[in-house]
Amino acid sequence: MAAVTEFLNRNKGNIIYLDQHVDRQEKLFYMRVEWELDGFVIPREKIAEYFGTLVAGRFDITFWLHFSDKPPRMAVFVSKLSHCLFDIVARYTAGEWDVEIPLIISNHEKLAPVAQRFGIDFEYLPITKENKAEQEQKELQLLKDYDIDFVVLARYMQVLSDDFVKHYPNKIINIHHSFLPAFAGAKPYHAAHARGVKIIGATSHYVTPELDAGPIIAQDVARISHIDTVNSLMRKGRDLEKIILSEAVYKHLERKILVYNNRTVVFN
Amino acid sequence: MAAVTEFLNRNKGNIIYLDQHVDRQEKLFYMRVEWELDGFVIPREKIAEYFGTLVAGRFDITFWLHFSDKPPRMAVFVSKLSHCLFDIVARYTAGEWDVEIPLIISNHEKLAPVAQRFGIDFEYLPITKENKAEQEQKELQLLKDYDIDFVVLARYMQVLSDDFVKHYPNKIINIHHSFLPAFAGAKPYHAAHARGVKIIGATSHYVTPELDAGPIIAQDVARISHIDTVNSLMRKGRDLEKIILSEAVYKHLERKILVYNNRTVVFN
Amino acid sequence: MAAVTEFLNRNKGNIIYLDQHVDRQEKLFYMRVEWELDGFVIPREKIAEYFGTLVAGRFDITFWLHFSDKPPRMAVFVSKLSHCLFDIVARYTAGEWDVEIPLIISNHEKLAPVAQRFGIDFEYLPITKENKAEQEQKELQLLKDYDIDFVVLARYMQVLSDDFVKHYPNKIINIHHSFLPAFAGAKPYHAAHARGVKIIGATSHYVTPELDAGPIIAQDVARISHIDTVNSLMRKGRDLEKIILSEAVYKHLERKILVYNNRTVVFN
Amino acid sequence: MAAVTEFLNRNKGNIIYLDQHVDRQEKLFYMRVEWELDGFVIPREKIAEYFGTLVAGRFDITFWLHFSDKPPRMAVFVSKLSHCLFDIVARYTAGEWDVEIPLIISNHEKLAPVAQRFGIDFEYLPITKENKAEQEQKELQLLKDYDIDFVVLARYMQVLSDDFVKHYPNKIINIHHSFLPAFAGAKPYHAAHARGVKIIGATSHYVTPELDAGPIIAQDVARISHIDTVNSLMRKGRDLEKIILSEAVYKHLERKILVYNNRTVVFN
Repeated sequence: MAAVTEFLNRNKGNIIYLDQHVDRQEKLFYMRVEWELDGFVIPREKIAEYFGTLVAGRFDITFWLHFSDKPPRMAVFVSKLSHCLFDIVARYTAGEWDVEIPLIISNHEKLAPVAQRFGIDFEYLPITKENKAEQEQKELQLLKDYDIDFVVLARYMQVLSDDFVKHYPNKIINIHHSFLPAFAGAKPYHAAHARGVKIIGATSHYVTPELDAGPIIAQDVARISHIDTVNSLMRKGRDLEKIILSEAVYKHLERKILVYNNRTVVFN
Repeated sequence: MAAVTEFLNRNKGNIIYLDQHVDRQEKLFYMRVEWELDGFVIPREKIAEYFGTLVAGRFDITFWLHFSDKPPRMAVFVSKLSHCLFDIVARYTAGEWDVEIPLIISNHEKLAPVAQRFGIDFEYLPITKENKAEQEQKELQLLKDYDIDFVVLARYMQVLSDDFVKHYPNKIINIHHSFLPAFAGAKPYHAAHARGVKIIGATSHYVTPELDAGPIIAQDVARISHIDTVNSLMRKGRDLEKIILSEAVYKHLERKILVYNNRTVVFN
Repeated sequence: MAAVTEFLNRNKGNIIYLDQHVDRQEKLFYMRVEWELDGFVIPREKIAEYFGTLVAGRFDITFWLHFSDKPPRMAVFVSKLSHCLFDIVARYTAGEWDVEIPLIISNHEKLAPVAQRFGIDFEYLPITKENKAEQEQKELQLLKDYDIDFVVLARYMQVLSDDFVKHYPNKIINIHHSFLPAFAGAKPYHAAHARGVKIIGATSHYVTPELDAGPIIAQDVARISHIDTVNSLMRKGRDLEKIILSEAVYKHLERKILVYNNRTVVFN
Repeated sequence: MAAVTEFLNRNKGNIIYLDQHVDRQEKLFYMRVEWELDGFVIPREKIAEYFGTLVAGRFDITFWLHFSDKPPRMAVFVSKLSHCLFDIVARYTAGEWDVEIPLIISNHEKLAPVAQRFGIDFEYLPITKENKAEQEQKELQLLKDYDIDFVVLARYMQVLSDDFVKHYPNKIINIHHSFLPAFAGAKPYHAAHARGVKIIGATSHYVTPELDAGPIIAQDVARISHIDTVNSLMRKGRDLEKIILSEAVYKHLERKILVYNNRTVVFN
């Protein structure tokens, strides 16, 4: 930490955020630092090189450098359920997030009017067993064409192929409608009701090739009782899902998530 | 419901509690009614017979009849951890619960002084693979000798045999230190830490032959973060465990739990 | 309860929901019953009269009769903040609620585009000290013209006059951005931050002439810490506000809220 | 921060914990650092002097130095309710906390047997309007005689005088049975029931001369409904009270609480 702060101080970088975490078990040190470029001695295009040579190289540090004046570009994948999509575009429209959302991709046509209402391009790419590989190629091309930085699966009811996932490591955020690792896979509310749990949950996580097993970003829960039906679980769950998916998007946009060993450090 | 309330009204039983639940999916009706015996026309030893003939038989009702003037007798099984036991005896000593606790059974000697401090008999029955069947027989004999109605496993670190469990159907309450069905089995805090969840939980449930799969009575959760270690999960989890185990005991003592199809109806 | 269920049974009304609550302290009995009109002997326009004479009159019952085939009509009042409004129109558009929302009224023009996007009429009625009484008259006229049944204040930053409130008793739902009764009045997040609380909240309630003192319908909370600023409280609070306001609207639409003595019974 | 860590590094102090917080609004920097004395160059009795001169003096730092090899000594004040006391002595007996508890003071005799059971001295000092000043002098003398570092009010139903409080600034921890600042003062559960809130709470805080207005350390809440009576609020509240009081004691013992401007920084 001393080396990093010294590097910034020496080059007249005014630190405006600093947080760190020591994982004694894994013997790892995590750090997130934000500073102003006004008056910083090193030109922006040289920062990565200088920091890499003078600091990261000496201490075996893996680092990511982001500039906050260019908002990241995000694509949303949806199917038929609108609650997560509405929550996202509402925040986007209200200017809550520093992001660009130029593209919505869906395997159903149902939510096209939502996209239209908010002036976002909508691409309809229905998926069957037969055309899946082909359609995913089109999706990847679209993401490239739109210069997309990361993808949000807003209750997108298709499993992405390993190949697709590998194009966006720790850059695809999914919402799973259960308290993972409980009830991974299909129909978690039905499973929760059948098991008779007294609390349900929702989990946002980065997508990895293994289904519902990626690094968890955020989780939330709601109390239920014997009075609840599968339908009322779905109703209550929708609120958990949209809030905790948007929380994950927010933390991702703030670049406050570090991933290591399938677990996340999420800074405040 | 009309038949039950009519039966009570006609025989001058003053209803002081009534709650009901309709499970439309299972097509079941659950009901709990409490009334005063003062002035009730039917003598207490005849109530079950009359109700059985005049009401239950007509409507295919399964019923349990309890008299609240005789507190149930409870045995506590423990190993080395004291927090759940302390929570139980503290409530017992304070008179919070309408219960008798004459017996504590343990496979370790460590908590004998706690039992002694609170004037409760303590039986030390260490368990090995070889002597398990034999020791369980002694435990069952003790439960019989002490006229025990139900058993609470307060972080008892032994799996009860199927045979033992069958002697006390829906009468053995366990606390599992995870949010079931996530992390069933051994070392749930280690598993939760390894998976990187953001919320931990505890679950109290009736014991059935299948491990950690019995009807859930109550669950609680606590938020954690990347800062937490396995040790801090254990520390935070202890509070969840003791509160949610005692909640289950309280509901059991109030006879507010009905079990059907491995799920519970827990009345308010 | 027997009298009500008997009245329905005798007239061939198939009960599909029944919940009740006894308040022993106030000596009050609350009940909500829902039945099908198919096959019901009494014609719909005569139900209130017959029930009033044959049941309510005999037992000193106050009752409300609603028909679920006509969705209630709701108006939303807003100012500049969009999160609650978006949450409401998203649910409306998705068909989550059985309601008509023909009208949005605002003292600012800012959210007109949201109304337009969702095809809802938007009336701009700016309020000053001088014109308040006059503008409220126009609002009341609009509510009448649009045949509005109840009003939702979705972060509407004007205090309604007593006169206005009296036109819609228990029919105006407000969201207050604190855990009432803590931090009633203006700037609750600033007050919460200054006091150094560790949990913030939001409260939805019916509006009464006394500010922030009406019957509470729903409340929710979020944990915070010393790291939080007033801005982060606002950010976290927005999620609480929109969810708990919509929860109140949902319960109101389901007619599951009964008000007595400035408190609510909210059925499941 | 650099100055502090440099001071420790230069003198061979192995840092095992470091956390910091910047309050931009108040322009304050908070820091907590823990290091090993093995191999530390400065002798323990000189650390405060050297640190004061070489670091604190230069940067206008207020600092506290604690040695963790001497557990703090704590006194518990109680009245008639036992749940918080039991929770404290259970943790103490289990060795959960690094503390000595040699003394319990009470204005009632009721809990003397609890103290006796756990081998803790019990002093009975009944308080009336007339003898209050005199009895508080005796209490202060007892705290001195027992070499007490801090005091925990475990549902002690007497208001301490300003004079008493001033002897132990930020060293008296109280539990208030409401979600402060809501329902300060007497009978908060009655007040919560009368107001019809949907969530109740408990608050642990340092005692200051102004009643229930000291710096908040921890808060917790529980959902309630119209079904709850004042008695059931008390029952549910007891669990909140004991857990959140013990949480405050734990953080105090860990010296993880810093107080400034009537607010707390509570490190993880």
